[in-house]
Amino acid sequence: MKIVLLDMDEVIADTTAAMVSWYKQTFGGDINYQKMLEGQSLVKGFPEEHQAVVRQQLYEPGFFRGLPVMPGSRDVLEQMNKRYEIYIVSAAVEFPNSLKDKYDWLMEHFPFFTWQQLVLCGSKKMMLGDYMIDDHARHLHYFRGKPYLFSAPHNLNEKSFDRLNNWKEVGEVFLG
Amino acid sequence: MKIVLLDMDEVIADTTAAMVSWYKQTFGGDINYQKMLEGQSLVKGFPEEHQAVVRQQLYEPGFFRGLPVMPGSRDVLEQMNKRYEIYIVSAAVEFPNSLKDKYDWLMEHFPFFTWQQLVLCGSKKMMLGDYMIDDHARHLHYFRGKPYLFSAPHNLNEKSFDRLNNWKEVGEVFLG
Repeated sequence: MKIVLLDMDEVIADTTAAMVSWYKQTFGGDINYQKMLEGQSLVKGFPEEHQAVVRQQLYEPGFFRGLPVMPGSRDVLEQMNKRYEIYIVSAAVEFPNSLKDKYDWLMEHFPFFTWQQLVLCGSKKMMLGDYMIDDHARHLHYFRGKPYLFSAPHNLNEKSFDRLNNWKEVGEVFLG
Repeated sequence: MKIVLLDMDEVIADTTAAMVSWYKQTFGGDINYQKMLEGQSLVKGFPEEHQAVVRQQLYEPGFFRGLPVMPGSRDVLEQMNKRYEIYIVSAAVEFPNSLKDKYDWLMEHFPFFTWQQLVLCGSKKMMLGDYMIDDHARHLHYFRGKPYLFSAPHNLNEKSFDRLNNWKEVGEVFLG
């Protein structure tokens, strides 16, 4: 079976939606997606005076446990999991309190995956596979297989990789 | 730089010593290293009636946080870290409560490593590197670089790989 390395945040977990929702409830509106795009970072879309506290959310226990599932990902992945050897590879070690949250989240929302399929890392440089789907160009640059950039508000200007815009398109490419 | 993938339990963390010490304090003596060897498993060295509770220890929060550092590993790795690209790759996802413990343990005892160098996974099949040092043959079998079996009580009968018996030998091979 071909190996697919699949990112978690912004690919199967809607981190941006959760952060925007938390921000609106805490501080009211005023998110700037244009600045997210220009700064190539989720955090840059929030007003400067709140960027430290937005970033701090990523270190809080529980934040990653409550993320919404990216629309369409569950059904496509349940089918893909029968045809490919899939690993969910998340650069989560930067946020140590997210580690168990990410395991619990994956086992709840994608029960057809096993614990053998989760990788929580810092770097993805030493990962081998046939395909990688990620929202960050920095992970795709090192990859020796076929890289796909999964569209997120922060990466819409990135031109270096073939792009998958949503899970319908992932299904078309990988399930034919 | 050449990439070295390094296991955690039984290689830089003395899991057997910690389990034996916990067992002796809880139940008194009676560990059988011959059965550990024959069963190719740490747990098999303990009396049958206690094997379930010994295995349960691996799932307890805090167990992996308190492991002793494998003698000699710190000094050799501090030198190796200047000459090699080192990743600590631990098949820890089977034990979700160990994930943050393992991060905290590594950052305390090996402060010259960064979070980018830790990988917590289920399988090691998709890991790419020049060298792998591990106490489990099942991880070495898939590896495409040069594998080394690090000696542990459970693997002394394994004949398929070149063996490193201790950190003095690791230093001789990797630091010359």
